[in-house]
Amino acid sequence: MNYYAKPLNKLIAELSKLPGIGGKTAQRLALHILSMDDQSAFALSDAIREAKENMTFCSVCGNLTDTDTCSICADEHRDKSVICVVESPKDVIAMEKIREYRGYYHVLHGVISPMDDKGPEDINLKSLITRLQNPEVKELIIATNPTIEGEATAVYIARLIKPSGIRVSRIAHGIPVGGDLEYADEVTLLKAIEGRREL
Amino acid sequence: MNYYAKPLNKLIAELSKLPGIGGKTAQRLALHILSMDDQSAFALSDAIREAKENMTFCSVCGNLTDTDTCSICADEHRDKSVICVVESPKDVIAMEKIREYRGYYHVLHGVISPMDDKGPEDINLKSLITRLQNPEVKELIIATNPTIEGEATAVYIARLIKPSGIRVSRIAHGIPVGGDLEYADEVTLLKAIEGRREL
Repeated sequence: MNYYAKPLNKLIAELSKLPGIGGKTAQRLALHILSMDDQSAFALSDAIREAKENMTFCSVCGNLTDTDTCSICADEHRDKSVICVVESPKDVIAMEKIREYRGYYHVLHGVISPMDDKGPEDINLKSLITRLQNPEVKELIIATNPTIEGEATAVYIARLIKPSGIRVSRIAHGIPVGGDLEYADEVTLLKAIEGRREL
Repeated sequence: MNYYAKPLNKLIAELSKLPGIGGKTAQRLALHILSMDDQSAFALSDAIREAKENMTFCSVCGNLTDTDTCSICADEHRDKSVICVVESPKDVIAMEKIREYRGYYHVLHGVISPMDDKGPEDINLKSLITRLQNPEVKELIIATNPTIEGEATAVYIARLIKPSGIRVSRIAHGIPVGGDLEYADEVTLLKAIEGRREL
């Protein structure tokens, strides 16, 4: 039996397609949206449509932007000698939040994953090669996630770029700050020992 | 500093106004929406707008509906002798899901709560009195939540209706099925003892 009127049912169905939103949460959100005033509900609806219509990928780095070139690539004051390679736009946000890195980014939009039938030509790699023709670039920091695919992609890119003389580095993996050795998994601990630095 | 382009920022802001959606979740949902194909994203946007535009309250019982009379009130095959009084439309859904109750509903849209400056005239009570003029109605089940306000509202309605000769009942409160006596709070246990039934 169907407990909801059609428009409500449709809204619940659409909301439950979102990640982490199950049936119960979708129902709660839908009923909340119905209890909101018209203006707020329409603002949400419009925000979704506008974001989808106006957001695109930066023609240089592949980051999310509402202009042709994203605000980071358009910023002339950043350090032109470094490019940080990340998997997705949310990694750019995570990096920017530390307020320490001042170079540019390159978003791959995925990783090489033979299991998912994704090869080097399926990620945003070609434009990175073009960007590296710029003699100003001295270092490439590979910040893909420490998963099997992320590591494989890092190694692939490193092998591809190294012959050109550009320094290629990988972000450090180890015990997170505030973490506990006791609870660290073996691979992380191994990486932490491998990556030890002299004091 | 602002890490997001304007349309994305707006979407995250709108999403984080929803209950239970914090900043991180809003960001994750917004990025997911951007990664969806146009059709799915617009379907979500349209579902919000359409639900908000088309959903209204049933002129009879106050339940959510997209027609003048909700599907429950329009169902001639239900038991006309019983009306169940609930606080909100989601309580109607919860009741319907047990597939046992076959009477009609009346949605109060709130409870009497002097602390929030809400009196009997601020809830959907007047139309209930009108509905009870129908001699077919024999019983009123009050299913407001077992909170102070819900109880007070139940007592208020009971006192108001009883003189008319209609049977007024309250749903049982006690230990939930599968619950444990050890972990039940004192008030629930007291209610369970008060409401004991002969075997």
